[in-house]
Order: sequence, then structure tokens, then C-alpha cells
Amino acid sequence: MEEKGTSIEEIMKELETAHEEDYLFEGGRVLGSMCTTPKEGSVDAHKMFIESNLGNPGLYPGTKKLEVEIVSILSELMHGKNLHGQMMAGGTEGNITAAWIARNVTGKDEVVFCENVHFSMNKACELLRMKPVMVGLNEKYEMDVEDARSKISEDTAIVVASAGSTELGVIDPIEELSELCQDNTSLHVDASFGGFTIPFLKELGYPTKPFDFEVDGVSSMILDGHKMGMATIPSGVFLLRREEDIRTIAVESPYLTSVYQTSLLGTRCSAGVASLYYSIKSLGREGYRNLVKDCMANTNYLVSEVKRIGLDVPIEPIMNICGILVKNPAGIREEMDKRNWKVSLSGHPPCLRVVIMPHVRKQVIDSFVHDLEEVCKEKGEL
Amino acid sequence: MEEKGTSIEEIMKELETAHEEDYLFEGGRVLGSMCTTPKEGSVDAHKMFIESNLGNPGLYPGTKKLEVEIVSILSELMHGKNLHGQMMAGGTEGNITAAWIARNVTGKDEVVFCENVHFSMNKACELLRMKPVMVGLNEKYEMDVEDARSKISEDTAIVVASAGSTELGVIDPIEELSELCQDNTSLHVDASFGGFTIPFLKELGYPTKPFDFEVDGVSSMILDGHKMGMATIPSGVFLLRREEDIRTIAVESPYLTSVYQTSLLGTRCSAGVASLYYSIKSLGREGYRNLVKDCMANTNYLVSEVKRIGLDVPIEPIMNICGILVKNPAGIREEMDKRNWKVSLSGHPPCLRVVIMPHVRKQVIDSFVHDLEEVCKEKGEL
Repeated sequence: MEEKGTSIEEIMKELETAHEEDYLFEGGRVLGSMCTTPKEGSVDAHKMFIESNLGNPGLYPGTKKLEVEIVSILSELMHGKNLHGQMMAGGTEGNITAAWIARNVTGKDEVVFCENVHFSMNKACELLRMKPVMVGLNEKYEMDVEDARSKISEDTAIVVASAGSTELGVIDPIEELSELCQDNTSLHVDASFGGFTIPFLKELGYPTKPFDFEVDGVSSMILDGHKMGMATIPSGVFLLRREEDIRTIAVESPYLTSVYQTSLLGTRCSAGVASLYYSIKSLGREGYRNLVKDCMANTNYLVSEVKRIGLDVPIEPIMNICGILVKNPAGIREEMDKRNWKVSLSGHPPCLRVVIMPHVRKQVIDSFVHDLEEVCKEKGEL
Repeated sequence: MEEKGTSIEEIMKELETAHEEDYLFEGGRVLGSMCTTPKEGSVDAHKMFIESNLGNPGLYPGTKKLEVEIVSILSELMHGKNLHGQMMAGGTEGNITAAWIARNVTGKDEVVFCENVHFSMNKACELLRMKPVMVGLNEKYEMDVEDARSKISEDTAIVVASAGSTELGVIDPIEELSELCQDNTSLHVDASFGGFTIPFLKELGYPTKPFDFEVDGVSSMILDGHKMGMATIPSGVFLLRREEDIRTIAVESPYLTSVYQTSLLGTRCSAGVASLYYSIKSLGREGYRNLVKDCMANTNYLVSEVKRIGLDVPIEPIMNICGILVKNPAGIREEMDKRNWKVSLSGHPPCLRVVIMPHVRKQVIDSFVHDLEEVCKEKGEL
């Protein structure tokens, strides 16, 4: 460390240089991220609450009230009653927490999920010393119910389903899985991406399926405000049907204003609470519905353009995530990366994966498809 | 969720009301938090990098560079060479990560720590299914070396020591513990609080002890930029002596710009990286030293005032944390809370616990001691 501090001008110049090297959502070519530019104003809300730390909740009764209000609004949106809710870092923390609670509540060790579950479930199993039990996919790339039936047993602590999978945005057959879960088996829904999308897809008349607490067996859910919720990172919301189950992960927290801590993290960046509050309140159902409507229009436009140039998609998109079939996804991705397009890959089936977030405009899609066609011709895909 | 969005004016009014209910550091009476008002300017740095997510590092090469620079500066400060370093949520994530790596590297299950370790170690053990082995304290409330000698065995995966314990800010005898650790036993230092304090205490001539990578056996360390580092939450820095050990917790991350993810969290609020960069660069050694100097002067003033009114302290403070001995700590805390003083408790020995962060000014201490004397007289402590 230098003895003397550097001048503010010099530091700001360094920060600006670094900032320019980052890929920004706005006006950018980021087609492989589930995050997006936060709703205008929600960043100011975040900044206003920059000191907030719900890890020490007694100091932040105002932030706590905002969290309670968010949990109440989202519980209702997710057809839940008297749920326990808390905000956390996001999908990975939510998935780990769900498995952790299930391990402690059920006294069992097996975690059942399918091949397109988010990779954090492998992390959760390794961390928690639980046994992953893999279920295959059906022709729509959803969890295969018949295979799940054969894998769910009296050793199953928890079944983890996706509502908006990270791969292709599919919704697992959560009603059917619920029927397969015994009384003493938890069912967790990873709605990190779909939580702020599916309710509005439904209102727009798109085909969706029951995925939330209206399904009896659903024990817990994570949904991310910093994905389609249009808020800053971190604004994950964890919902738990049986409030008392959270006590199984409680640890005494003697130096804090709370007697117990019931979260994976200690000190927590809780400015996202204010940010999500801002986004939810300012957008309302109408605002989210319009965002989802625009994203779906752009997604459908991408599909038609992909087909026009002679490529195909593995499934018609359920939400604003689109797979694009090519013979060599990794190779095409690399070429597109050289042209500064940030797309990603999906494994089931192997394909390019494009997430059409609100920052992805129609002219960006045109430009992307133009480059994709060129690259695919160069590489013999077309 | 309401159908229509609420007006910006109304939302901002709600947020301001909530913000006023939170206890703020500046000018406030928060004497029980290890966080403080971030360095001016570092909140703007945080805001500038609000989209940053090192969970998907390929999109944020600029943020990544800042992280690399921070790790380099702090590695040098901590006498480390060629360390692996990454930024994370903070002390709890760092402690869990250290135990997780040790479990996987050593293939063993026991975690040795002493009674005043941060409570996140109990969380880590429960989460990771590791066995906590408790060591007693010596008369200075540090880990007792002789007791540790009898508890460290060939089953010990990791010994966790504090450099600036959460309770009283003591530094465990890390050199002696290092000698007790076998080749295949990790030694983690929780320097969440002390990391940004001890090097400057040493420069100021206060008595300190070797606590970092200059001690051969130290495997890993966590230090929090959002505590005495003067940055925003989350700006924890995890340092690991053997870079290759991080691979033991790697999980494939197929949709991201990285092939593997080696962190507990997925999506990560990484704006704290820019914030900590700002604080480190603008303060320099001189700036941190002056902060530590002022905090110690105020801490020593508190001790003299506490003694003046007829109370005592369990130990002369090592850093800017002060215990205050009373017969009924919980009762006195409650009374002080009614007077809007936010202090906390320490368990070894049972006492009040006051953290003299940079936001705690001399006149606040005067006012606090005044109320403490009144409350102690009312309750028969004096």
C-alpha cells in the first residue's frame, strides 16, 4: 500500500478507465446475462440505503419494513399465505438455503433435480454433503416426471425444480412433481429468473403452468429482483411456506441486535432491498407486464430471424430466453465473442443461448443476427 | 402487487421515511457495529460499478482489474506472495469458504477454534457437516495454546484464529498455533476486523503480534473492507496461500463467461470492489494510520472515563473495541437501548461491548458515559 493517498482526480480517472472496460447493458451487446440495467431511480434508492445491513437488523428498522413489504407483495403474487420471507444475495444463496433447510427439517440427504438445474445445486450438494440424484429431461427439456417418479424415494430430502430454467427458460412440471413428493419431502422452486416473468406472461395470455405456492407441495422459492425484477444486485427474495422451518438453520448471533441469525451470510449488503422496493412500486403489474411483453416480442422476433437465416431453435421460447441450434456451439460462441457479442451456451441440447433482457433492443437483434449469419457461413454451419 | 405504478414522489417519500428510521453511523449513537460510514467518494465509486457482477467475470474485465490490484496491495500488506485472492461478501463467507476448502484439501472433518471465535464458525460447521472442537481461553481472552495443543490432532482439518476477535478485539497467538498445526492442517485467520487495523497499530507503536502470512502456517485470511477498510458492504477480501487449493471448491458454470465458479455465491454485488479500491487508494497507509490513531485515542479515552465513573474493563483494549464490566450486561444494555444507545454484549467475560469506529466522536463518548453512569446508578451497579 502506498504511504500517501492518491488524488481524487487520479483515482476517478482509474475508475472511469476500468468502468469503460466493463461490458455495460445499456446500448451494449450483452446477450448472455440474466441481469440488466436496473430501473431508473432504483440505483438512487440503493445508494440511499448503502449503510443498510440486515445482518444486524435492529439498526435498520426502516430497511426491515421495506423488506417486509416486498415479502408481502411477492407472497401474494406467488399465491402464498403467512410465508416466511427474507431477502438475500440471489439464486445460489436461495438454492443452498433451501437444500440446507430441507436437510435439517427432513433428516434426509438426497437432492433430486434434473439435468438442466442451475449449477448451484451441485455446489449446494457438495457444500452440504448431500447426495445429488439426477433426473432426465423430457422432449421439452423439462424434468421428466416418469423418471422423477423412479428417483424420488423415502431418502429424498428435497426436489429442486426450475420455473424459468437458466438453460432455456423452461418451467418444470411442478404440479406433477408436487404429487410425487411425500409429506416429508421438500419441493423447492428456483424461480430466480421466472419469478418476475411468469405471472406477467400469464396475464399476457402466454401459455404457462402453476409454479408457485398455489401448488400444495411447494415448500420454498427463490426469485431474483436483480434479474427480471429490474433492481440492483443483490435483491434475491427467498420465500418459505412453513415459517418454523427457518429455525433449523438459526445460529446464535451474540454481538448483534438479533438473538439468532437465519441466513447464510452475516453482514449483508441490503441496499438492494430499497432498490427492489423502488422497482416494484414504480413499475406495478402494468410496468412489469409491459417489460415482459416487449421482451417476448423481441424474443419472438429473434426466433423468426434465426429461422429466416436457416438456423433452428430447440424449442419455441417459453420466456425471454432463446436457444439457437448450431453444430459447434462453443466454436460459434468464440467467433461471436471476437465480434464482441456476449452470448452463452446451453447444454440440453448443446446450443447457443441468448437472453433477451430489457436492454436488448430490436436493432441489436438485427445486428446480432447479421453477424451470426456471417459467422455461421464462415464456419460451414450454413 | 398494485396494477399501476406509484408516483416517484410518493415512493421517494416512503424511502425517506424508512431511511429516517434506520440508525445511521454519522452523528448517531451506534456503538455496537463493526461497520461505519464509508469513506466519502467510495459510495460514488460503488454506484458507478452498480452493474458489476464478478460471478460472471468475463463481462467485467475492468472490475476484475480493480480486484486484482486490491488483492495485490493487500497481499503485500499481509506479507503474502503469489496468493490467490478474491473479493466476497465478508467475514462469514470467508470463514465458511476457509473451512470448506480445508475440508476438501485435507479430507478431514474437525474444526478447532476457541470460545470467542465469530459465531459464523458454528454456522460453517453445521453447514459443512464438520465437527467443532472448542478450545478454552487464556487470561487475556485469547485462544489457550496449551488447551489447543491437546485438541489439535491428526483429525484436525483446520484451526480458526481471530486477529481482532469480534468479542474484545484480541489477537489469538497465531505463531504458536502455527507450530501446532501439522503439514496437513490448515490455519485460517479471521481478520475481518483486524486486517485493516493491526498493520497500522504496529506502525503507531502499539503492541501487536504476527498474525498474517509472515507466519508460515497461515493458509488463508479474510479481511473486510466494509469494516475498518472504510468501504461499502460487500468488500470482503479472501486471501489463500496455496492458489491451487481454490480448485477444490470449483463448480462448473456453463452459462457464464468463466468455466468454473470458485465462490460460495453466484451472482455477486461487486460494486464494493470499486468502493474499496477508492478507499485504499485515497487513504493510503497514512490515512488508515490516522484513522486507527484517532479510534485508539477515543478508545483509550473511553477506558479512562469508564474507570473514572467506577466501572472496569476486562482487558486494556488491543484495538478499538472495549469491554465494560457490569454485573448484569443484558439489563444495562436494555436500559441503554431505551436511551437510544446501540451497544452490544460480549460473552467472555460477560460484559458490555463498545466498538469505537471512526464515526464515534469524543463528545458521543462523553454523552454515552454520562448515560451509562446514570443507568448504572439506577440499577445498583454503582
